[in-house]
Amino acid sequence: MKVAIIGGSGYTGGELLRILAGYPGVDIEAVTSRQYAGKKVSAAHPNLEGILDIRFEEPELSGIAERADFVFTATPHGFAMEAAGTFLDAGLKMVDLSGDFRFDDPATYERYYGIPHTAPELNEKAVFGLPELYRDTIRKADLVANIGCYPTTAILGLVPALKAGIIEPGHIVVDSKSGISGAGARPTPMVHFCMADESALPYKITSHRHMPEIEQELKKVNPRARISFVPHIVPVIRGMTTTIHTFLREDVTGEDVRAIYQDFYRGEPFVRIWDAGEVPRMSASRGSNYIDIGGFGVDSERERLVMVVCQDNLVKGASGQAVQNMNIMCGFEESAGLKTIGVHP
Amino acid sequence: MKVAIIGGSGYTGGELLRILAGYPGVDIEAVTSRQYAGKKVSAAHPNLEGILDIRFEEPELSGIAERADFVFTATPHGFAMEAAGTFLDAGLKMVDLSGDFRFDDPATYERYYGIPHTAPELNEKAVFGLPELYRDTIRKADLVANIGCYPTTAILGLVPALKAGIIEPGHIVVDSKSGISGAGARPTPMVHFCMADESALPYKITSHRHMPEIEQELKKVNPRARISFVPHIVPVIRGMTTTIHTFLREDVTGEDVRAIYQDFYRGEPFVRIWDAGEVPRMSASRGSNYIDIGGFGVDSERERLVMVVCQDNLVKGASGQAVQNMNIMCGFEESAGLKTIGVHP
Amino acid sequence: MKVAIIGGSGYTGGELLRILAGYPGVDIEAVTSRQYAGKKVSAAHPNLEGILDIRFEEPELSGIAERADFVFTATPHGFAMEAAGTFLDAGLKMVDLSGDFRFDDPATYERYYGIPHTAPELNEKAVFGLPELYRDTIRKADLVANIGCYPTTAILGLVPALKAGIIEPGHIVVDSKSGISGAGARPTPMVHFCMADESALPYKITSHRHMPEIEQELKKVNPRARISFVPHIVPVIRGMTTTIHTFLREDVTGEDVRAIYQDFYRGEPFVRIWDAGEVPRMSASRGSNYIDIGGFGVDSERERLVMVVCQDNLVKGASGQAVQNMNIMCGFEESAGLKTIGVHP
Amino acid sequence: MKVAIIGGSGYTGGELLRILAGYPGVDIEAVTSRQYAGKKVSAAHPNLEGILDIRFEEPELSGIAERADFVFTATPHGFAMEAAGTFLDAGLKMVDLSGDFRFDDPATYERYYGIPHTAPELNEKAVFGLPELYRDTIRKADLVANIGCYPTTAILGLVPALKAGIIEPGHIVVDSKSGISGAGARPTPMVHFCMADESALPYKITSHRHMPEIEQELKKVNPRARISFVPHIVPVIRGMTTTIHTFLREDVTGEDVRAIYQDFYRGEPFVRIWDAGEVPRMSASRGSNYIDIGGFGVDSERERLVMVVCQDNLVKGASGQAVQNMNIMCGFEESAGLKTIGVHP
Repeated sequence: MKVAIIGGSGYTGGELLRILAGYPGVDIEAVTSRQYAGKKVSAAHPNLEGILDIRFEEPELSGIAERADFVFTATPHGFAMEAAGTFLDAGLKMVDLSGDFRFDDPATYERYYGIPHTAPELNEKAVFGLPELYRDTIRKADLVANIGCYPTTAILGLVPALKAGIIEPGHIVVDSKSGISGAGARPTPMVHFCMADESALPYKITSHRHMPEIEQELKKVNPRARISFVPHIVPVIRGMTTTIHTFLREDVTGEDVRAIYQDFYRGEPFVRIWDAGEVPRMSASRGSNYIDIGGFGVDSERERLVMVVCQDNLVKGASGQAVQNMNIMCGFEESAGLKTIGVHP
Repeated sequence: MKVAIIGGSGYTGGELLRILAGYPGVDIEAVTSRQYAGKKVSAAHPNLEGILDIRFEEPELSGIAERADFVFTATPHGFAMEAAGTFLDAGLKMVDLSGDFRFDDPATYERYYGIPHTAPELNEKAVFGLPELYRDTIRKADLVANIGCYPTTAILGLVPALKAGIIEPGHIVVDSKSGISGAGARPTPMVHFCMADESALPYKITSHRHMPEIEQELKKVNPRARISFVPHIVPVIRGMTTTIHTFLREDVTGEDVRAIYQDFYRGEPFVRIWDAGEVPRMSASRGSNYIDIGGFGVDSERERLVMVVCQDNLVKGASGQAVQNMNIMCGFEESAGLKTIGVHP
Repeated sequence: MKVAIIGGSGYTGGELLRILAGYPGVDIEAVTSRQYAGKKVSAAHPNLEGILDIRFEEPELSGIAERADFVFTATPHGFAMEAAGTFLDAGLKMVDLSGDFRFDDPATYERYYGIPHTAPELNEKAVFGLPELYRDTIRKADLVANIGCYPTTAILGLVPALKAGIIEPGHIVVDSKSGISGAGARPTPMVHFCMADESALPYKITSHRHMPEIEQELKKVNPRARISFVPHIVPVIRGMTTTIHTFLREDVTGEDVRAIYQDFYRGEPFVRIWDAGEVPRMSASRGSNYIDIGGFGVDSERERLVMVVCQDNLVKGASGQAVQNMNIMCGFEESAGLKTIGVHP
Repeated sequence: MKVAIIGGSGYTGGELLRILAGYPGVDIEAVTSRQYAGKKVSAAHPNLEGILDIRFEEPELSGIAERADFVFTATPHGFAMEAAGTFLDAGLKMVDLSGDFRFDDPATYERYYGIPHTAPELNEKAVFGLPELYRDTIRKADLVANIGCYPTTAILGLVPALKAGIIEPGHIVVDSKSGISGAGARPTPMVHFCMADESALPYKITSHRHMPEIEQELKKVNPRARISFVPHIVPVIRGMTTTIHTFLREDVTGEDVRAIYQDFYRGEPFVRIWDAGEVPRMSASRGSNYIDIGGFGVDSERERLVMVVCQDNLVKGASGQAVQNMNIMCGFEESAGLKTIGVHP
């Protein structure tokens, strides 16, 4: 299969290249970058030196649409909704890693991204790209909206408990700590080493774009779900720890909760459920497509339940999940190309 | 005044030495360490090389009690409750940096620290060493229990809002991120660089010893206060960010909340209130005794309010606060010796 | 092939497991650890959770020798020279990751490791496990001494220039910066996060054990070679940057030097030569078996030449190289099991 | 005394403010920043919140020259040589923290900074601002060129040994590791957290601007001095470790060398000489004006001598040294305002 990556010089683009370079049977037909056009991919991604001997090209979409069978858009928001028509009309399947097609209601997009949605009809066809919840619809989709890094942890960490009815839907707190690669490769004051190191900084404490994404999905499980979401950046390159604080509606033990999660995710190739009382650490999934859910801490006296979710924000939180979606869309083995083991320590 | 430090080779001991070495009028009469007895203080604290030319000695308490006017115990829990009698009987004033005298009810201590409290009568006299709330009783105290690093941020960050009645007392979430120095100088697997770096790790997610300390104080404000507290270690040497997630009982703006906090802490020498929407960062207080409260994020749609509190866990969270308590107990200017400015970046 | 790992709970043991778990055709028959005996490998290496479902066992050598075809010893020095006989007599091939068999002269070992060498006859048969220089003898060896992390960078970084005769042999400076995993998993004051972070610390500045290893090999190229080697630990989990400062004996350009290196390493599967003026970064090889040589900085005015070498100290500097040696010893494809791409960023 | 800071929003500007805010008797009359004009200084330097209640202003030089007695220029190179005349003509004394006036020969400046030197006559009057070597001329100077961070460590670390004649002048290697604040506050790809973290990166390996500065001063001690200088950035906010590799001309012990250094720096308020075999660490001087020289490792077999020098690159390597120069120029106590103790850990 011939794959194209639009926007390949950023971190998620680099991860797509890393994964696909080690995926037999997939050819990287084109990778674009305005900034790096004409340069070797190793100019942006030095890990690919000597491994992937191709060059970035200009994003000439219709030409690329003719050459490729499948396309990933790893571009800033606003791009994919303009480009998707070209690819879909040419018969390609597509995974978009931006926020363009993640919302059922384009109005939500417009509110949180601040620009009009220019492809509402495609938005209707797009499928929310979370395999653990939407595998069957992803299988039939031509356009999949790869979901955000924070939402992957929050949604997978909350749905089983919410569905089981054991937690108060109206008092859910999601406190996420993200590696700084989540902010992208562009140098800004926020990601300056001297600002990001020796720090743990909350940002957009009431208004992050991933909040409505989380809420959209949880409200489908329980319409009364109300999320208090605060993202943080911590001095970590890649990795995410999401601490989920909930209040219990019934008397359960950590073991009970763990059993609920194990049942829910039985057979999932990338979800690992940790023992009650065991807390996953970032390095268990670093560089891999695993997502680890653990903690299951119950404090009966205070009627509270805590879950901890970890993943690599660039893999299961972005490019790994995108390839997982591709595998499902194309009928390939779901974990093909994604068997790399986490790098610990 | 002649000061003794019992347990001077750890991080809080080192901070006491750093602060007191730059405090004119205070003589460090004795600093003890079993491990370093006979060695220069710079053997444990290289920053003191050429500045403080004294040596550690063995902790011979009665001898030290004769030589000093004031004593700090920066020892593991269990030590101070055995030693306090010796010092108080000899007429010294004392600040204990451990957990031994922090609880109104010794039973709480015994439950969370797992050992019997051997000095309940002294415990009754001990004053909770949080100057912003207990300045007047500290002034008259001979024995002050310097409070924990996490509780300093949680209590100061919550009391004004709780007192004002604007938040639901039963759904308070305190998610704290601490620098690793909070775990002490002893090498353990948890603080191994390769485990602590590139990580953000929750621990003791339902059972940390600082939780009852927080709850004890908040229940005095509102008996229905219920705290969901999860501490984390992040790859930071010193510093703490506490994110406080609350749910609103009435319709307020961030500005309203900020005004409540400003009123509450007016005149406080070490509490800085940041603008609504501004989030303090660790480096603002690094190495200094300031505590920064900000955020004041209101999401009316979800009826939630978020505060962010930062401090240096070894200064305002430990040794700086201890010296602040000493200043109050001795009738000195409260900020004497504590005017060092934070080291940013 | 059935493989045993003696000493599997440390970092190099963990890397062997990570690599071999993803190596089809290799079965991990046994992995030992006194500390973790009976526990799942994921208790020490959480990245292996759900991937490698085996347990640590006690190091009962003769039993293991019967079950396995190949053995890795990832044990503290002193162990392998006691154990090697058991394995070799039973017909196994062996790669030792410690320093026990690295020196031509056991007296050097005794001087730098401070204990008598108890298997000098085996030492004579052992082959220095650096494939790029000793591939042909490794092919026939039963016992290979996997070489040190620092020596891998220093030797591969210096041999081509030294052989070409372009540098002064008597004034070679090797200044290495290592990730802290090189110090092992045992918690010590040196690897405490608060000591290792925000630091770049030289240690054993004239006496590191890897120095004679480097010198032994360079003296084979030029007996007048004299090395000034200073190792440092930097706040990095895994990775190594070795800066090689040399003085030129003739007038060359950076391009000339690069050509010498390219010729020397032509066809090598894991050596990447960077352009003159380009400096490799740790992330290019993080988690992978590549070693990157670049820089080739010439300052004709000062007659100096600088090379920069990077590798992952746990992979090419330890366990990856060990598997590479195994592949050569067993006649497998040299890069089998070692195709993982570096994790950048 | 009324002091002005031109270019106050960067890291060295911030450090000047931090130091001077705690310096009784010095008034900060003006601090300029084009980017932050009109904003509170805490907008750029949050540690100053509640401490220094002044605002940045536009750099209107002649107006400022009328209001101030002393001026620091903490501006990019090229600015100070244009501005110095205005200040000096108005009778101010001036310390320039840029490279504009550091070279005896303006041609060296032009070669390494790539622009013409527009104030050669002022350059002749400027004094090289290294108090330990030039205290007497600094005392009489109106214009002092504060020297570079790397040169401070290299020059102070080498002059005693070079003067004593114990080392080969033609084979001196200076391998420096700098905290990233040395690169300034401007966000660039090099200082992006994801590029700088988990890394130790040599840069400008044969051409750094600080090299001629080092050589200029060492050639005054021995005209045959030849320096191989390679700077590195390591994942550290502030701090510098310079490892100096030299070759011995005579048979000395580490103790002998240490004695040479102790004699040389006797009475210096900010130079600390460590015991032979003891290596200083960055945290000993973090946030303080100390410079630590130690190591003094002798390997007689290889005729080599290693020194290790540490400092805070923003303090002794920049703004602390600038205030030290100011103190000397103005006849104040040399350590006034500079008594802050290093923040360890």
